[in-house]
Amino acid sequence: MNFASDNAGPMHPSVLDAITKANTGYEMPYGNDTIMPRVRDLVRKTFEAPEAAVYLVATGTAANALALATYTNSWDTMFAHRVSHVEEDECGAPDFYANGARITLVDGAGAKMDPDSLRHAITHTGDKGVHGVQRGPVTITQATEVGTLYSLEEIAQITAIAREYGLKTHLDGARFANACAALGCTAAEMTWNAGIDMVSFGGTKNGCAGVEAVIFFDPEKAWEFELRRKRGAHLFSKHRYLSAQMEAYLQGDLWLELGAKANANCARLVKGLETVEGADIPDRPEANMVFAHLPRAAHRRAMEAGALYYLFPFDASLEGPDDELIRCRMVCDWNKSHAEIDALIALLRG
Amino acid sequence: MNFASDNAGPMHPSVLDAITKANTGYEMPYGNDTIMPRVRDLVRKTFEAPEAAVYLVATGTAANALALATYTNSWDTMFAHRVSHVEEDECGAPDFYANGARITLVDGAGAKMDPDSLRHAITHTGDKGVHGVQRGPVTITQATEVGTLYSLEEIAQITAIAREYGLKTHLDGARFANACAALGCTAAEMTWNAGIDMVSFGGTKNGCAGVEAVIFFDPEKAWEFELRRKRGAHLFSKHRYLSAQMEAYLQGDLWLELGAKANANCARLVKGLETVEGADIPDRPEANMVFAHLPRAAHRRAMEAGALYYLFPFDASLEGPDDELIRCRMVCDWNKSHAEIDALIALLRG
Amino acid sequence: MNFASDNAGPMHPSVLDAITKANTGYEMPYGNDTIMPRVRDLVRKTFEAPEAAVYLVATGTAANALALATYTNSWDTMFAHRVSHVEEDECGAPDFYANGARITLVDGAGAKMDPDSLRHAITHTGDKGVHGVQRGPVTITQATEVGTLYSLEEIAQITAIAREYGLKTHLDGARFANACAALGCTAAEMTWNAGIDMVSFGGTKNGCAGVEAVIFFDPEKAWEFELRRKRGAHLFSKHRYLSAQMEAYLQGDLWLELGAKANANCARLVKGLETVEGADIPDRPEANMVFAHLPRAAHRRAMEAGALYYLFPFDASLEGPDDELIRCRMVCDWNKSHAEIDALIALLRG
Amino acid sequence: MNFASDNAGPMHPSVLDAITKANTGYEMPYGNDTIMPRVRDLVRKTFEAPEAAVYLVATGTAANALALATYTNSWDTMFAHRVSHVEEDECGAPDFYANGARITLVDGAGAKMDPDSLRHAITHTGDKGVHGVQRGPVTITQATEVGTLYSLEEIAQITAIAREYGLKTHLDGARFANACAALGCTAAEMTWNAGIDMVSFGGTKNGCAGVEAVIFFDPEKAWEFELRRKRGAHLFSKHRYLSAQMEAYLQGDLWLELGAKANANCARLVKGLETVEGADIPDRPEANMVFAHLPRAAHRRAMEAGALYYLFPFDASLEGPDDELIRCRMVCDWNKSHAEIDALIALLRG
Repeated sequence: MNFASDNAGPMHPSVLDAITKANTGYEMPYGNDTIMPRVRDLVRKTFEAPEAAVYLVATGTAANALALATYTNSWDTMFAHRVSHVEEDECGAPDFYANGARITLVDGAGAKMDPDSLRHAITHTGDKGVHGVQRGPVTITQATEVGTLYSLEEIAQITAIAREYGLKTHLDGARFANACAALGCTAAEMTWNAGIDMVSFGGTKNGCAGVEAVIFFDPEKAWEFELRRKRGAHLFSKHRYLSAQMEAYLQGDLWLELGAKANANCARLVKGLETVEGADIPDRPEANMVFAHLPRAAHRRAMEAGALYYLFPFDASLEGPDDELIRCRMVCDWNKSHAEIDALIALLRG
Repeated sequence: MNFASDNAGPMHPSVLDAITKANTGYEMPYGNDTIMPRVRDLVRKTFEAPEAAVYLVATGTAANALALATYTNSWDTMFAHRVSHVEEDECGAPDFYANGARITLVDGAGAKMDPDSLRHAITHTGDKGVHGVQRGPVTITQATEVGTLYSLEEIAQITAIAREYGLKTHLDGARFANACAALGCTAAEMTWNAGIDMVSFGGTKNGCAGVEAVIFFDPEKAWEFELRRKRGAHLFSKHRYLSAQMEAYLQGDLWLELGAKANANCARLVKGLETVEGADIPDRPEANMVFAHLPRAAHRRAMEAGALYYLFPFDASLEGPDDELIRCRMVCDWNKSHAEIDALIALLRG
Repeated sequence: MNFASDNAGPMHPSVLDAITKANTGYEMPYGNDTIMPRVRDLVRKTFEAPEAAVYLVATGTAANALALATYTNSWDTMFAHRVSHVEEDECGAPDFYANGARITLVDGAGAKMDPDSLRHAITHTGDKGVHGVQRGPVTITQATEVGTLYSLEEIAQITAIAREYGLKTHLDGARFANACAALGCTAAEMTWNAGIDMVSFGGTKNGCAGVEAVIFFDPEKAWEFELRRKRGAHLFSKHRYLSAQMEAYLQGDLWLELGAKANANCARLVKGLETVEGADIPDRPEANMVFAHLPRAAHRRAMEAGALYYLFPFDASLEGPDDELIRCRMVCDWNKSHAEIDALIALLRG
Repeated sequence: MNFASDNAGPMHPSVLDAITKANTGYEMPYGNDTIMPRVRDLVRKTFEAPEAAVYLVATGTAANALALATYTNSWDTMFAHRVSHVEEDECGAPDFYANGARITLVDGAGAKMDPDSLRHAITHTGDKGVHGVQRGPVTITQATEVGTLYSLEEIAQITAIAREYGLKTHLDGARFANACAALGCTAAEMTWNAGIDMVSFGGTKNGCAGVEAVIFFDPEKAWEFELRRKRGAHLFSKHRYLSAQMEAYLQGDLWLELGAKANANCARLVKGLETVEGADIPDRPEANMVFAHLPRAAHRRAMEAGALYYLFPFDASLEGPDDELIRCRMVCDWNKSHAEIDALIALLRG
């Protein structure tokens, strides 16, 4: 009964199948395998971006850090939400890959950048001449770290501000599929149509073993990215296994199907949580993740029965008053069964 | 007929099988999967090193760069052979991971450090006080980049010099298995018994999809390594798939069996090459790789029939005098069939 | 009539005199001059710290960045006030020198860290395990960037929190003398007595041409600092000219005398400003710097007559309603004459 | 009797005088002083380069590292002679400032790059595609670290090779004046006329206290350099004191006059050394520095009488056979008196 993260789940059978099929004979290494050109075509088609530069890496942090670094000078600062993976969960990888660049925090409800807060952060950064760090790219997360979504208009609003100041924009799409499925929009609509310049397109959390695509809609810095990826030790020799995962993931829009499934699972979970006495769900879950405040007694019942998910703070104690609300995060991937979800709810309800 | 590299071959069926088996249900991410403790035990047992810190990454460059960085200050220089992967083939990853540290080149025949050359490099580095870069770790490659081997005595000689100056030692074992099989020694004998402090233990080139173990015989910097790995974006969320590969690779000493097979394949290839008229093989191949000088006509016949391997220089032309010798590299993995080897020889012989 | 900054003023005659006296014959370079041992002794005596490691650099940014880097791993974050030189005015030098470490911002009135805000920043940093950046040193500025002061108790409160979490503390003393003179305390009381581990002791803004001392009360990392300073290109060959400045600055407590003079000049200025109709001075000036809101007409009169000081925003226009208040910063050094101050006030009053 | 280095000598009186004159009233900081525009003009006139970007820093290492970094990607390697300041005497500052770039060593007699060795280094660097570090700028030292000179033709030969591969060229001119005076050429002839793109123009070793000009003949990256300088903590607040030094140094071609004097002093010294019995001077001294092999007894006599200069190795013992030759370096600045030189010779001759 593991609701800790969508990265705790297995590969989708089609993805494993693709790895198995790829495991025959010899393939040239380092991205020169025969599968990768098909992957490139599929990404370009999916994003309606025939010129896009497309690369594969194995972790979301690598995708984010390498993409951002490509457009960040060491004396720049990147603009990210206070609650974002690049700020909180990458142990400074973006700073490292951008040779010591900085992250300037932007606020906003539901882990989404408030346009005014972004504008303030940008203008405040720019008022020190040579003495201050300079303005670098803006990065947003979709779906966000708390399971909410930017609407297409909200994305366009953010990128318009960035563009006004000549800044590049990046979308951390570790949960791209969940967002796209929930919004019912195309990949193009959620990205370059809305002004996004580069994307980390996640596969790992949504049915793959470990693969993310980095997509630059303008390929001008493609070669530089390749050098950065190699220097960062993220160019795989047996690259075919990354290619195979991504091909399976894109074929027949499996990514979208799995994203939608995960969202549906989460919706079922949320519906159940709402029936737990005392439960409070402040941010409306829009993708595959829910943050809820539940009574300690509910957590105790679930966890003693083996349920896995995160409490906040991480070391919150199950000892104490039964009624006290403790914040928790629960995540569903495509693979969750209705039975498992219902069993969790039953435990929580007691 | 691909003899370009041992990273062009497939996974061993047992390794794929392990991935398949690992693909059920939920596992905690980031190295907290249930397979990893078994991997740790297997590595420790294989190396007879019950205290060793053991970590998995997905590329050999990551293993080298992260291991070395853990013992290299940014103002240090690492000592490496002029013909080594860290110097020639990692786009500066060790420099990057060690925050701008330098590599000092050491010479020696057969891509092996000459002890006098190492000693000279170390003492020359140390004579400038605060003005010069400082002495960092010594790294050797076993099997070397040209397919030769350090004897155990030669390793001990190198590490003794390092130790004399208080320097740590690292063994780049991208082809650890081939070396160990060829020397007929244990993993412990080739490493800590001979004075080695840390090892990149390669799986990728020898039957895995992409996994390397980093092993520190002294675990004092284990936590620092974990931070460096995360910051470098090399901590896998779905880590179970790295664990599964490595477990299969170590179980029943599959690694050693595959290394021996690759070596035997190469021996067959070398034997054949010696029958090609005009062939010259300067460095005696001791593992799974051969560098040979062959007449252009031989290369032309092989390549026109689809054989793949590297010429030096990379852009050497197949047009020109038939007799002229052109240097080439051919590598065998465990998966090469006798038929394939013999077919290549037949082509080369014409 | 330049009130733009205390770095716009000249050297004190004694400092120039010392440079002139030092300009005879030959002196060994790189800190091995015959003056430096005396400087070291003077610093140790001034700070009552006989074991302290003492080094000279030429800019305040170098002092801060090098000192902090010595105790900051690349995966750490330093804790600094939102309004601090390291955050706002060093173009990311601390991040650069600490190989990509980060700065976490702490809030508090008057550009002084609020203890609760610091504690929150520290605990929030520590709750992500390997995924988040780790806790690095705490740095405070005394006098602050807005001309206020930490009391000795307030410093002790901050360092106590740092110590609780095992963190080192740094004091950016670009205006150390002004603070010490204003508080009427000793250098020791304002630093190690109050729990400070390292100090940037400024000379440049207070009568020197360009010299700052970096002081570590615990000399354990002295050699590492020397390497960092050299690698940062901040080890002067003709170091005697740094030594000479600092010796003159410390002799007879010239530093303290000049700090007191600058403060007195500022007090006179503030008194005058309070008589400007409409003036508003929110933060009480405690050292040698005042931030005031003055009517546009007052600024217009002063600036058209040649007065120099900064408006906020930097590009604030002198055209517009006369009564509108515009924020400004005025700084006094030791060299300001009463006449100059009074002339400015007269202009502002109209 | 200090012949250890030209950085052991004093400022020229005119330079001190300029500092004294600059020490009146208020000047805007950070390069906005009223002297700097005149300095810029003087440099441009001296180099016949009306478009050149001109900046001042205080150390030669800063000049080299910042200039090179401006044209070096972190994945590049700079080409430098094995015996050069950037390689041997800057504790890795160029690597640090270029965010981990590498230095590839070039050989050649007299510490001058052999064109064939340079070409080989460049082509060897370029043959690995994404796997190897990429080609960065070529830097030469004039006068060299062993006191020899490139002829104008030799410089042109080196820069022509660089240009062939699209690489930028840098001249480390810590002893620019000595070289220019010895060659009897103009500053333009020795630099951009001969294909040089950027220059570290040294003042410190030749009569200044601590100032070097960085000159880019193409100003396209001027702003980037300013950011790098600030971030490196090398932008001086009281910049007027750098400006004043450089103005005095350039006025009336003082730099050239002092360079010529230093050379003449060295010529006198060399002439004397040739009369020391057993003396051997392998590289012909062409500027202000001589490397000689002298009998131990001669060294002993000189050093026991207080002479200061460097032996190689640094810890060479004065105990031992009288006749044994020990290598030494002696450097003359403009300030050496004939009496001092003759006294040293007298001691050495015994």
